[in-house]
Amino acid sequence: MAIEMSSIVSKLSMLSTSDHASVVSMNLFVALLCACIVLGHLLEENRWMNESITALLIGICTGVVILLFSGGKSSHILVFSEDLFFIYLLPPIIFNAGFQVKKKQFFVNFMTITSFGAIGTLISCVIITTGATFAFKRMDIGPLEIGDYLAIGAIFAATDSVCTLQVLNQDETPLLYSLVFGEGVVNDATSVVLFNAIQSFDLNQLNPSIALHFLGNFLYLFVASTLLGVVTGLLSAYVIKKLYIGRHSTDREVALMMLMAYLSYMLAELTYLSGILTVFFCGIVMSHYTWHNVTQSSRITTKHSFATLSFVAEIFIFLYVGMDALDIEKWKFVSDSPGTSIAASSVLLGLILLGRAAFVFPLSFLSNLTKKSQHQKISFRQQVIIWWAGLMRGAVSMALAYNQFTMSGHTQLRSNAIMITSTITVVLFSTVVFGLLTKPLIRLLLPHPKITSSMTTTESTTPKSFIVPLLGDSRDSEADLEGHEIHRPNSLRALLSTPTHTVHRLWRKFDDSFMRPVFGGRGFVPVEPGSPSERNGNQWG
Amino acid sequence: MAIEMSSIVSKLSMLSTSDHASVVSMNLFVALLCACIVLGHLLEENRWMNESITALLIGICTGVVILLFSGGKSSHILVFSEDLFFIYLLPPIIFNAGFQVKKKQFFVNFMTITSFGAIGTLISCVIITTGATFAFKRMDIGPLEIGDYLAIGAIFAATDSVCTLQVLNQDETPLLYSLVFGEGVVNDATSVVLFNAIQSFDLNQLNPSIALHFLGNFLYLFVASTLLGVVTGLLSAYVIKKLYIGRHSTDREVALMMLMAYLSYMLAELTYLSGILTVFFCGIVMSHYTWHNVTQSSRITTKHSFATLSFVAEIFIFLYVGMDALDIEKWKFVSDSPGTSIAASSVLLGLILLGRAAFVFPLSFLSNLTKKSQHQKISFRQQVIIWWAGLMRGAVSMALAYNQFTMSGHTQLRSNAIMITSTITVVLFSTVVFGLLTKPLIRLLLPHPKITSSMTTTESTTPKSFIVPLLGDSRDSEADLEGHEIHRPNSLRALLSTPTHTVHRLWRKFDDSFMRPVFGGRGFVPVEPGSPSERNGNQWG
Repeated sequence: MAIEMSSIVSKLSMLSTSDHASVVSMNLFVALLCACIVLGHLLEENRWMNESITALLIGICTGVVILLFSGGKSSHILVFSEDLFFIYLLPPIIFNAGFQVKKKQFFVNFMTITSFGAIGTLISCVIITTGATFAFKRMDIGPLEIGDYLAIGAIFAATDSVCTLQVLNQDETPLLYSLVFGEGVVNDATSVVLFNAIQSFDLNQLNPSIALHFLGNFLYLFVASTLLGVVTGLLSAYVIKKLYIGRHSTDREVALMMLMAYLSYMLAELTYLSGILTVFFCGIVMSHYTWHNVTQSSRITTKHSFATLSFVAEIFIFLYVGMDALDIEKWKFVSDSPGTSIAASSVLLGLILLGRAAFVFPLSFLSNLTKKSQHQKISFRQQVIIWWAGLMRGAVSMALAYNQFTMSGHTQLRSNAIMITSTITVVLFSTVVFGLLTKPLIRLLLPHPKITSSMTTTESTTPKSFIVPLLGDSRDSEADLEGHEIHRPNSLRALLSTPTHTVHRLWRKFDDSFMRPVFGGRGFVPVEPGSPSERNGNQWG
Repeated sequence: MAIEMSSIVSKLSMLSTSDHASVVSMNLFVALLCACIVLGHLLEENRWMNESITALLIGICTGVVILLFSGGKSSHILVFSEDLFFIYLLPPIIFNAGFQVKKKQFFVNFMTITSFGAIGTLISCVIITTGATFAFKRMDIGPLEIGDYLAIGAIFAATDSVCTLQVLNQDETPLLYSLVFGEGVVNDATSVVLFNAIQSFDLNQLNPSIALHFLGNFLYLFVASTLLGVVTGLLSAYVIKKLYIGRHSTDREVALMMLMAYLSYMLAELTYLSGILTVFFCGIVMSHYTWHNVTQSSRITTKHSFATLSFVAEIFIFLYVGMDALDIEKWKFVSDSPGTSIAASSVLLGLILLGRAAFVFPLSFLSNLTKKSQHQKISFRQQVIIWWAGLMRGAVSMALAYNQFTMSGHTQLRSNAIMITSTITVVLFSTVVFGLLTKPLIRLLLPHPKITSSMTTTESTTPKSFIVPLLGDSRDSEADLEGHEIHRPNSLRALLSTPTHTVHRLWRKFDDSFMRPVFGGRGFVPVEPGSPSERNGNQWG
């Protein structure tokens, strides 16, 4: 009984105080996070590096130092935990992405994004699975079942939306950012759904009814997850507006927003939906309604604290992946045949390049067919960037690979050990090499007149690139959290007169007539006199 | 090997995604936190309730519901984890307290606070130990050793600084707040030190050399912990000022402040110092220097996000304690003799009342002897409030009690089960009953002309109570984070002319000449033109 009790306690507590080694690890980790932040600041103007790569390299260096100090034994500071990643680190990143995303950009390209994210991931998965099946059978890897090959497809079809956020700049390349990042979110969800489906379905009898079931399952997940996120976001907006929480304490508003956002993610996990999609849409709704219902200081606080949490979580992940990469356990089985592991990694990298090319260019072509005017189409140069920027594989791949290949004890099976080490190699190589080349590639293909290093992030100016006219002044988008730039009737009228924006106009009408009176939103708070929705008489309902 | 691996993973991860019960628990917990916040908002104007008691009651009700649903079996959502409390929940609360405390108030009363916190706790501990030894030997409790009795003294000498923060109001009763809360921080540290000393020293040979050793140990801990906190705080100020982190990103500033604060706590844990003291002083230094070196939006963000984190952690603790209280395991052994448990709890409550009275009144008398003018002395009515407001026992007592009485498996030993249930009873009773009576008691003893419910917390007006003149306008204190009220040369001059503030004047001189040029601080950032320290030419070092 006592043992059961203590095991429960140790499960509930992440690290034991009595365990001095854990305290050492946590100190090391927090100190490294600080070091990454300071280094990231110093390297800000470097045209190659970004924070992810810095963190990854620091992580690897620390891993080396720890290995040397511990005399080649692995320390448990190096172990990658799937749960830590999915329950604590991923939600703030995705939520913040939804909270800060330029919503109009996202919704105007909704169809393209969804097709990239869903159909593209399926194509990519099929190509990687097929390629891996052919290639690995000829190599000395060991026994892999059909489920393993399908899992490999799902694992390596998952692009790293975190790294994309670091490499692309929302202000410099808004269209590419919204396409690649939006695709990344849908892709993450698709990969996780695919992966779970592969693990749960009986794969020995593949027939059309299972495929249909699979498709229905995916659509249900997509719609239900989105709805859950939207409903939670609206609930937070309604509660904060109706009860006027800010009257007594701004802290309650901030706390409620954070907790409701997290609750949406956990509710999705509870109901076996895609938490990533849910929390993303919750972020969008919260930035559209809830954020405008809180006091001025809460707005500044939420905007920056969500960004900070996301930023720290991102660095944490890369540091973690870097440190975990050198865990000696995994490399033991591979060390006697390094050639096989390198060959497997190269094959996978090649398949990733191929699998992504196989859907980016055809789907962009299809997307271009639906667009009327020339400047709305995705140019070939932009397609190349979309292809390249989504090549990075990250923590989602790692987490899925651990899930698939360590459940049966990866150190026992040679094939599992090789798959884990290959995943690490692919993640490191793609993040560092592809990541390093992305910024120069964008500069090469889309030369900007000026790259402003804005003095404060809140006042970052949108460079006048040729992409901006594509979708009107991006400043006008509703996601512009500053809210100072809304009194521009001319550009607004010009925007609304464009026929492609009919859906947007209908939405605006619906939003103004039905949604905002109930859920608040911009124009609700009396801080901005003269705003379009000032007619809302009962300001503090 | 696989088992070892998975056990490490499950240790590193707080809750397993695969474990659906944990997801249910987390959902329940987050939803309850939201409910507590909303209820706390609705009950804000209630003169009896406060957020702690609301959370505690909600926790108990949930515990009842869970017990009923699970058919009397305990669920592991109810288990109190010492580590979760000490590593994740306590640091943000204490840091925020240091960050928001009115520093001048705190330092003017430094001697009184320290004597209350250190000597007072020792007195209280001795009285509780002695009383418990006499009383429990006559009751049918079971075998308790001398170490257990000493531990009981340390456990019940730990006042609950979290609850104090909720009950007293810094703006309404600044002197009482700084005395009781400051004492609480020192007291927490003293209790933990005492407790660790009791567990590590050989108690069968109590002699003067051990007592001296003990005293030396305590002084070392106090000084070293304080220094560690100050050094970490200064380092953060220096780095942020020197590198001008805010140039590129405000998020980095916020992240760095949070991580450095947490690092100070973890470093203290690493070096076996008192993390509570360290993080408290780190908070003070950060609000004095670092906070003034960051951009305006980072200031608002840090101020509110630290307060929010602390607020959520507080509610979390009370909810947790409330839910844990009904864990059926503990009550099983007690149920056959409820009288003994009630008697033990009553004895402990009586001893707490007595032990606190035994140091508050004598030490206040001694403190009054050192004060010259009448209005600087602590009046009898104020002494009663200090006595009363420190009676609450909370999560620190729970954590220490679990540490002492569950290590050997509390369900086996009747005496241990009784001690755990008595601790829970004392914590619940003191928090709810004493806590409920505190607000009315303060109103009875110190009637205020008006209790303003300020519209926004950032603009809370200091009520004109008779306590304010005691220490000059509290608005003038350096802890006033608003920073808008500093241009008041008249009151400043009047303040500096008072002889009792010589130390403060010397400190100000030292601060202006040596500290601020290096570490920044108010007047460093050009946001406030005309501030006293404007002569700092090199604004952005």
